[in-house]
Amino acid sequence: MILGKVIGTVWSTKKDENLVGSKLLIVKQLGLDFKEKENFVVAVDSVGAGEGEIVLVATGSSARQTNSTKNRPVDAVVMAIVDKLDISSN
Amino acid sequence: MILGKVIGTVWSTKKDENLVGSKLLIVKQLGLDFKEKENFVVAVDSVGAGEGEIVLVATGSSARQTNSTKNRPVDAVVMAIVDKLDISSN
Amino acid sequence: MILGKVIGTVWSTKKDENLVGSKLLIVKQLGLDFKEKENFVVAVDSVGAGEGEIVLVATGSSARQTNSTKNRPVDAVVMAIVDKLDISSN
Amino acid sequence: MILGKVIGTVWSTKKDENLVGSKLLIVKQLGLDFKEKENFVVAVDSVGAGEGEIVLVATGSSARQTNSTKNRPVDAVVMAIVDKLDISSN
Amino acid sequence: MILGKVIGTVWSTKKDENLVGSKLLIVKQLGLDFKEKENFVVAVDSVGAGEGEIVLVATGSSARQTNSTKNRPVDAVVMAIVDKLDISSN
Repeated sequence: MILGKVIGTVWSTKKDENLVGSKLLIVKQLGLDFKEKENFVVAVDSVGAGEGEIVLVATGSSARQTNSTKNRPVDAVVMAIVDKLDISSN
Repeated sequence: MILGKVIGTVWSTKKDENLVGSKLLIVKQLGLDFKEKENFVVAVDSVGAGEGEIVLVATGSSARQTNSTKNRPVDAVVMAIVDKLDISSN
Repeated sequence: MILGKVIGTVWSTKKDENLVGSKLLIVKQLGLDFKEKENFVVAVDSVGAGEGEIVLVATGSSARQTNSTKNRPVDAVVMAIVDKLDISSN
Repeated sequence: MILGKVIGTVWSTKKDENLVGSKLLIVKQLGLDFKEKENFVVAVDSVGAGEGEIVLVATGSSARQTNSTKNRPVDAVVMAIVDKLDISSN
Repeated sequence: MILGKVIGTVWSTKKDENLVGSKLLIVKQLGLDFKEKENFVVAVDSVGAGEGEIVLVATGSSARQTNSTKNRPVDAVVMAIVDKLDISSN
């Protein structure tokens, strides 16, 4: 999964009918030091993530394994909100 | 999903029989400032997107989850037209 | 899908039994100006593409959605021959 | 598969219900000389890997082929702990 | 598929139970001039490839379409040994 930060949302009226009601989050990729990278991805929310939150994003067919995304044409889902990272000191 | 802009179409007479009738869009990847990047992808249209429109593209097996793409050999689909992006100021 | 140009073929005697009879094409990735990029992919032919032709390549599980590739261990298929690109002038 | 080194874990209380009990490892990608690269991935543990261990990570839908990950929204799994690499001298 | 060269093997005692007996090959990516690139992938052997041999590697879910890899958590398989490349002169 990718480590990222929710920085906004995408508004879309005209979209695949199965996506009505889905929240489309803009997620910037983060380094382990929480610095934002250039890359971003648009991901469907499945855990109630809000702006500013650190999250994990699953991509590909795995993005369709949540109740909010099953059988939908989405290739990225926010499936966890991160509390903290534990990184070994050596 | 990838943020992109429809900049043209691909014409193809000789293609997989399941693709007859599909519209093949050329989509340039965009940054959050709507600046075009070098990368582009050819994606099947599923929402009636036209040239100049800002769209989302789903890739991989997720691209086959629309009525226009089911069981077809396509790995990218335009599944939403973007109205606007809401990006937090901090 | 990726825009590419067929520049050759791969010969292989010892391969997965399901691939016997499949033509393995070497496809160089192209820019929108038809300039060849450094990247290339080896893809199974499903439309009778020959050397020098401009094609589209579908990758991942989508590459297995043609009659020539179903259930086979291939992750790239040539599924269309390109007649021309229509790119908007603005 | 990717060669990597477990350098930490991700703590997450609010996550997809199917992920409760899964251990989320932070895995840095390694070169063949075991030098850490910049890239990292968050992967579910399926073999009891601990910090500092050299592992293999499978990504995409293949990450869901273990008992710990079946039908879950995860796109990366640690599926082997590496004892050693045998690299030919020529 | 990726063009590569087998340069070694990975030894692993502790791995997913479905992988017992699988040979894990280290494959360096090659250019069309057979020069080794920096990238490498660890792939399961399905055709009896040995060190020094030029091979094709299929990745993603396609890597699970051989008898040696079905339903296993592997995302790369060596599915062909390359005899030669035929590249057009123009």
